[in-house]
Amino acid sequence: MDETSRTRHAVDAYVDSTERRDWAALSELLAEDVIYEMPQTRERIRGKAAFLQFNSEYPGDWHLEVRRVVADGRQAAALLDARVGAEHQDACVWFEVSEQGLISRVTDYWPEPYEPPSGREHLVERW
Amino acid sequence: MDETSRTRHAVDAYVDSTERRDWAALSELLAEDVIYEMPQTRERIRGKAAFLQFNSEYPGDWHLEVRRVVADGRQAAALLDARVGAEHQDACVWFEVSEQGLISRVTDYWPEPYEPPSGREHLVERW
Repeated sequence: MDETSRTRHAVDAYVDSTERRDWAALSELLAEDVIYEMPQTRERIRGKAAFLQFNSEYPGDWHLEVRRVVADGRQAAALLDARVGAEHQDACVWFEVSEQGLISRVTDYWPEPYEPPSGREHLVERW
Repeated sequence: MDETSRTRHAVDAYVDSTERRDWAALSELLAEDVIYEMPQTRERIRGKAAFLQFNSEYPGDWHLEVRRVVADGRQAAALLDARVGAEHQDACVWFEVSEQGLISRVTDYWPEPYEPPSGREHLVERW
């Protein structure tokens, strides 16, 4: 398996184990010194133990589904569908993988819906 | 040049030509039936002419800089730093490229800063 395939596999397994709340499986994918960042809130979590705790304590009956994974050597990006009840939100997640194939950095973006500015109605359609 | 390299090159050139307002150069990168989507506002623009007009009419002295490109066959994702004056915002952009190497779909996310929810202060640091 080449580096890109290994990275893609790690990202798929990351989403799958998180969705299943299989913290043992998730733990095996993570570097000990994994860094998790949410730039929108300027929050950072350091280390596997804290990151696993963050995920296991995360409130709500949330569900994750992969919509797209783009892998490139030891980097990847995933577009996820995150659902709580009937509410869907897209997440953009950036990954870095160590030489050993462990996930060493995760950067999460949670873009929220908003109303479009006026002045471009002549160019766009809405859905 | 393999497919992934060609896609990466197209994404770099897309950002570069847009930053330089070089609409002729941008036009050469785009498929005629390019689709541009902004899922946060549920807006869609169809076709090269409308997309070029949208970009050329976009207000403000905005600047784009690539922070990361992940390319994978005919798909890619780019993390951009978008700046207007002293205001920075990250953009997450997803690309699809045609068999001919032209950009056929662009999906833009503009995640906004927000205040973190309480209850996870014991796990996170702020920056």
